[in-house]
Formats: sequence, structure tokens, C-alpha cells
Amino acid sequence: MRKRRSSAAPPLEEIAGNGLLHRRALLSGGIVLAGAMASGAAATQAAAEPLKDPPWSLQPGDVTPVLQTPSRFEKNVVRILSNPKGEPRTQHARAPLQYLDGTITPNPLHFTILHSGIPDIDPAAHRFVIHGMVREPLEYTVEALLRYPLVTRKHFVECGGNSAGMFSNAPLQATVQQLHGLVSCAEWTGIPLSTILDEAGTDPKATWMIAEGADSLLVNRSVPLQKGYEDAMIALYQNGERLMPGNGYPMRLLLPGFEGNMNTKFLRRILITDQPAMTFYETRNYSPLLPDGKAYRFYFIDEVKSFITKPSFGMNLKEPGYYEISGIAYSGTGTITKVLVSADGGKSWGEAAVEGPAAPKAFTRFRMPWRWDGQPAIITSRAWDDSGAVQPLRADFVAKRGETEEPVKSPYGFPNQHYNSLTCWGVDAKGQIKHVYV
Amino acid sequence: MRKRRSSAAPPLEEIAGNGLLHRRALLSGGIVLAGAMASGAAATQAAAEPLKDPPWSLQPGDVTPVLQTPSRFEKNVVRILSNPKGEPRTQHARAPLQYLDGTITPNPLHFTILHSGIPDIDPAAHRFVIHGMVREPLEYTVEALLRYPLVTRKHFVECGGNSAGMFSNAPLQATVQQLHGLVSCAEWTGIPLSTILDEAGTDPKATWMIAEGADSLLVNRSVPLQKGYEDAMIALYQNGERLMPGNGYPMRLLLPGFEGNMNTKFLRRILITDQPAMTFYETRNYSPLLPDGKAYRFYFIDEVKSFITKPSFGMNLKEPGYYEISGIAYSGTGTITKVLVSADGGKSWGEAAVEGPAAPKAFTRFRMPWRWDGQPAIITSRAWDDSGAVQPLRADFVAKRGETEEPVKSPYGFPNQHYNSLTCWGVDAKGQIKHVYV
Repeated sequence: MRKRRSSAAPPLEEIAGNGLLHRRALLSGGIVLAGAMASGAAATQAAAEPLKDPPWSLQPGDVTPVLQTPSRFEKNVVRILSNPKGEPRTQHARAPLQYLDGTITPNPLHFTILHSGIPDIDPAAHRFVIHGMVREPLEYTVEALLRYPLVTRKHFVECGGNSAGMFSNAPLQATVQQLHGLVSCAEWTGIPLSTILDEAGTDPKATWMIAEGADSLLVNRSVPLQKGYEDAMIALYQNGERLMPGNGYPMRLLLPGFEGNMNTKFLRRILITDQPAMTFYETRNYSPLLPDGKAYRFYFIDEVKSFITKPSFGMNLKEPGYYEISGIAYSGTGTITKVLVSADGGKSWGEAAVEGPAAPKAFTRFRMPWRWDGQPAIITSRAWDDSGAVQPLRADFVAKRGETEEPVKSPYGFPNQHYNSLTCWGVDAKGQIKHVYV
Repeated sequence: MRKRRSSAAPPLEEIAGNGLLHRRALLSGGIVLAGAMASGAAATQAAAEPLKDPPWSLQPGDVTPVLQTPSRFEKNVVRILSNPKGEPRTQHARAPLQYLDGTITPNPLHFTILHSGIPDIDPAAHRFVIHGMVREPLEYTVEALLRYPLVTRKHFVECGGNSAGMFSNAPLQATVQQLHGLVSCAEWTGIPLSTILDEAGTDPKATWMIAEGADSLLVNRSVPLQKGYEDAMIALYQNGERLMPGNGYPMRLLLPGFEGNMNTKFLRRILITDQPAMTFYETRNYSPLLPDGKAYRFYFIDEVKSFITKPSFGMNLKEPGYYEISGIAYSGTGTITKVLVSADGGKSWGEAAVEGPAAPKAFTRFRMPWRWDGQPAIITSRAWDDSGAVQPLRADFVAKRGETEEPVKSPYGFPNQHYNSLTCWGVDAKGQIKHVYV
């Protein structure tokens, strides 16, 4: 085996500094990562060699299970737990986004945060009630809800505290999973909440709804009633199957684009009212403090954001040559329309390919061909959505939102939420990748 | 608790016989499946009652695992195995499509067929070779392939033998899973095969490629080279994570719309050539016999098809009232453009809502509101795609393709393949559902 003759490769057109390539590089056949085989008599032998006797081609394989699980060679593709023994505090499970591709987070890997563990709910005994400022309070069984008209939509869910470590005034050396693993994307199927609101008949004076879960903390949040009539859903299925227990089985409120905690899991009650409830998770925990000492109230939306998942911290580049820069972009205010990528720390930018059609309030995968020349580089991404929102540069973001000397640990959760500025990965001459700020 | 006053429900507009409803029924608030709560003093007590002390609201829940698994109350949502002990013959695992919704089949539930078990492949040792009528034979590691430009696309894969039981001249009393469970849909991410073909440089005289897997049978199939330049892919990821072992880990050939067996798993070799190989699985096994004694050669495409998953055999209707009729439609020749549903065995039809935007060669979920009046009904669906193809009626299909006295068992697999006519579910006055032909 020898390296393919690089003379066979046509020149690749750059569209921005430090080796960002035009998409037509994808069609040029000039990527040159294959080993070529010897010609002539040696070719026969060489061509046969790699096919020689791998053990798995010599004997029957394993028995088919009723539920498939990943290969044992993918055992690092699991969630990171903050509280693996289930001590009496919040349990975070972060999704291994750097190992994933496409736009779907498989259900076993979807991030979860539980404040009092995962309740073991019998769907035959669970009830959902809508009451308060309605024509008549109504109660639903799960079986009844499953007969209602359903809709299927792909949406991300992100914890308002995702990426909290990015508020640190020095870049934390951490993986995508550690920094940004509290976001995931799934195809959800459920009942438009408007169907239920119409059926109960809300009072014209009502402006809020208070959603409550059946976990032992009865986690509750205030949601503007208008959101209920827009795109809120009572979700029953996640990527085709019924919800995972940690994602709210047997049903959850889904509020596309609103911070995860509001998407009430184990939904058992919606109270229609004319004022917010000022609950723990919307006052003490999820009211981000600002540099001037004030705090945001009712800061719901996960704004436009993107980060590069591959290559990223923990995945070093073995050798100069072609790589694909790939990542995810999403926005709680709309559909991703554009992602720019830079390989020179923001001096020059090229437009990434985005997999289409992009869905609103859903992961959009972006891709950029890149030829790393072996010199230091800083790769980053920046996203736009169809509402006109753009991911803020770090200097602007920090000026407005502040930063911390180190990530502050708080028994009440994250002191800073809704980070949506850029993430930059610095590649050194050895191909090692560090988290950097520019 | 009492039933909601039905006088509160506005009349629902029918669009076809036996209770098929206009989609605006979804917005009318007239579905009436909730229990209403008592008014006045009793209301306070009644409203509180369903919230009283379910055990899961009284104590902290379970510890978060690194990989989520479904609720123990969903333990019937598993694949059905044809060969659970792994005897030395083919192993089928059928997907429980009647319990799923949306368009994605979760990876643990994706159907699989293995002819010699699931090989336990070490991705670091696996190689992929392209050779034959090429400028130069090339060899790729998995690591190298992961650096190539990737694409993400949602596609179904269906065994050519799926629905073989539908060739029986008497309707088999069987579930959707038993009849149609050898099809699934996933979001696949991989390398367009054209990238690799271009890199190897195929001879202009080449017309076929022979794909071979690394399982111990070295399952191989002949594929028109043109398909390789159209939409074929070397798939590396399935719904975001690396392929399941039973679906071809670490890589498979994906040929959107072509019968599953051609989508070579554990792909280790593609030979570029100017003639088909006439392998076992394209001559003895997958050449459907026709009524006149002739057989189809190279019958690749899974044609336009649909079936109702809910309600279906095994799910009886508890009471008259509102139900959603829901199912999946897909086509190997294009994008689903229209699905009609009938509740009177095909006498009248209404157009179902299809979740959009429909993707080519992918599951499309269709939905139809239905009010069952408690009288016998026969529900069925029929799909169209953007190539102009339409799902054939059973009489026409059988006239052309034949039927059998009973489903013939053969050591070589299915004698009949590519059933794509209608599936009809008969509902009797008790709400029991049978498989019927009309």
C-alpha cells in the first residue's frame, strides 16, 4: 500500500483563510485520504490482502436481539452524569454531541435534567387536568390523549443553563459534551396544545398557564398562554417511540424554542390564569443576573446559536490534509438560514453548507470542507436565522451579559444562562485542539 | 367525573363515508374524549382528586442512567424475532410499527435481517476497497472515511420480502409488525458514493458494481453503477449515532429505494465491472416468480406503498367516538404527494393530512380524523408519489403478480417479494379489528 499520488488531485479552491474550501471540492475527487494499491502483478496480491481473514468473516456472527444496542467499540458514546449515585440533588446527563452527526439525537443519548429523579409512572393511572380560567375543567387519560389528532415536528430542547461554563473569563478546557451537552434534537409527536385549550375553552382574560409535572418536586413553570396557541404541544412520542422516562414519560409539554425547564415533563396539570406563579425555577433559578446587578425576568427563549462538533476539543488531528468541519446550529426564534465558518479566528469567513430543508427551532447540520496545512488555526462558526437574529460575537455578548472568574457552582443551579455566543477551537502545529477565546 | 356534555361539541363535517372527517375537525374542539369535572362545591374536591397521591409524586424517582431505555410499561414495544436462538439460518427482526408514530424508527427497533448473524467488527481493523474497472484500486480505513464530506438524508429501507404474507389468497390475521415489520426509516449520514467513485476513477465502459459485506457469508449484490452516481451513500451514522451492529456497523451501502438486501451491510468491497455477478441473492432468492412461470430479473425498487398502523389488527376500539387513523406511506420512486383513506372499504375516499415537508424515499406520516359510529367499517389507505406512481388495488396487483394458497415457506427466503398493494382493516360492531381483503 502507498499513498495515492497527490499529483492526481486537482487544485482545491479556497473560499476563506487557512484552508476553507469551496464546496465543489466535494466533487473534485481531490481529497486523497485513500491508500492506493500497487499496480501490475503486485496489485493482485495487494488487492487481496486487506480482505484476508478478518475473524468476523470466518464464523457466524452474534444472535439478533429484540432491542439493538450500539457496538462495543462505541462504548464511549454515552451521556456524562453529574450525579451518578442519585444523591438528593439535581441529576444532569449531557449528550455526547461530538460523536454524533446529522440532526437527530438518539433517545438513549438525549440530554436530561431531573431535579428529583425519574418517576416511574404507570400510564394507566396517570391523569392530565386543565383547569382555572376555563369554561370547564377537563381531565384526560393517556389512552384518551392518544386518540386525538397528532402532529409530528422536529425540535431541539436546550437547558437555559447549557454552555454556562462559557461565561468563565478563561476558556475551560472541556469537550463539546461538557460545554454544550445540555441540548438535543428529536422528532416529537403529540397533540397541539391549542386543541386542548379550545376544548376547555379559555377565558378571554387569561394570559398565563402554569404547567406542573408529576415528579415529587411537582416542578412548575409559568408560560404565556399565547405560546400555548402558537406551537406548544403535549408530546407523547420522541423519535417515533413513546417518550423516554427521563424525557417526561408518559407526556411532556413541548414549547419549541423555550428553555428546557419550561417544557414540563410528566405533565399532570395546566392551570389557566391571568398572572404568572413566580415559581422557584422562574425566579430563584432561571432569572439570569446581569452585570449591573439587575436580573432578567421571564427570559424564555434559547436564542440563535451554533458550535463546531468536529473537530473539537479532545479530537486531535493526526496529520495535515483534508478534514470536514461540521457542527450544529439552532435557534428558538426561527429557522437557520446561514452559518459562516472561519479557520483564522474570525478574520475571514466562508459560508457553510447546511443540510436542507432546515426545520424551524431544530438542529441544522452545517459542513465546511477544510484542508489543514499543519499550521496553527482557530476554527469557529456563527449562525443566522430567518427572524434576522445573529449569534453575537463574544466581546459584545460579555459586555451585555457579563462573565465570571470561574464557573460558579450554586446549589440552585446555574447563575448564568442562555449563552449563545461563539465557540472557538484552537488547533496547534501538532494538531492538538484547545478551547480558546478570540 | 362525568362525560363532557356532547351538546357542547359543534357538528363535525364529513368528507367521505363512514365518518371520515374534515381536517378542520382538528380545530373545532368537538372531539370530546376528556372527562369534565363537576361544577360548584363538588368541583373543588373533584379537581383535586386526580392529583391525589400517585406514588411517583411522593418520593424521589430513579437514578439517571448513562443510556436511557424505555419505560417498563412499554416492554411490548420490541422487535419480533424469527430465529431467537441464532440457529444457522436467516434471522429476521421485525419493527413494531403499530406502536410507533412520526417518521423515524428508533435505532434499537430498526428492522434487521442477518443471514449469518451479526459480525463483531473492530472498526480499527476494518477496510473498504474499491477495485476492478477503476483508474486505481483504493483502500480506505474507517477513520479516513469519517474525514470525508458527509451528507445527511432521511430514507426508508425495506426488505424486498416485506409483506410477503399479503400474497396469501386468504387474509392472514396478523399485526402490522408481523405483516409489514421489515421496513424502517432513519436519518442516515454518510459519504455520497459518487465521491469515492470519482476518486477511484471508473472506466467509461463500466456499468455495474458488485458490493460485498464482511459477514461470514460475504453477502454480495450487483448494483447498476448509475445508482452509485445518483443517490447511493456509504452510511456511517443512523439517526445521529454510528450504525447499529445489525444495520451494518461500521458502514453499509445505502441505496435509497432499492430493496434492503442490496444495501450491503459491513461493506468491505465494491468491484467495478461491466456485468452483474448473478449472485445467490439476486437470482435464487430475489427474483420473484410470476403467474406465467417467468420471473423478474433485477427487480430492485420498493414501489409506492402505504398502510394504516393505527388502529390496526390487535388494537380493538373500546367505544364509538373519535379516533385518528394514522399510517405510513413511502416510495422508492419519489416523494409521497397524496394519501387517500377510506373507511368504507374503498367506496369513498378522503385525502389524508401528510406531515410536511415530505422527504423523497422516506416515511411520510399520514393522518385522518375519524368518528367511528359503532357500525362495521373497513379502513384502508392508498398512496401516490411525485413520479406519478400509485399504489395498485389488490385485484390488479394479484392479476399481475399472483397469489398463493398459503404463505410458502422456503429455505431460500420469500418466494414472493415487493408486495405494494393495499392493506385493509375490518372493524366489526364490537370494535374488533380483523385483516380483510376487499
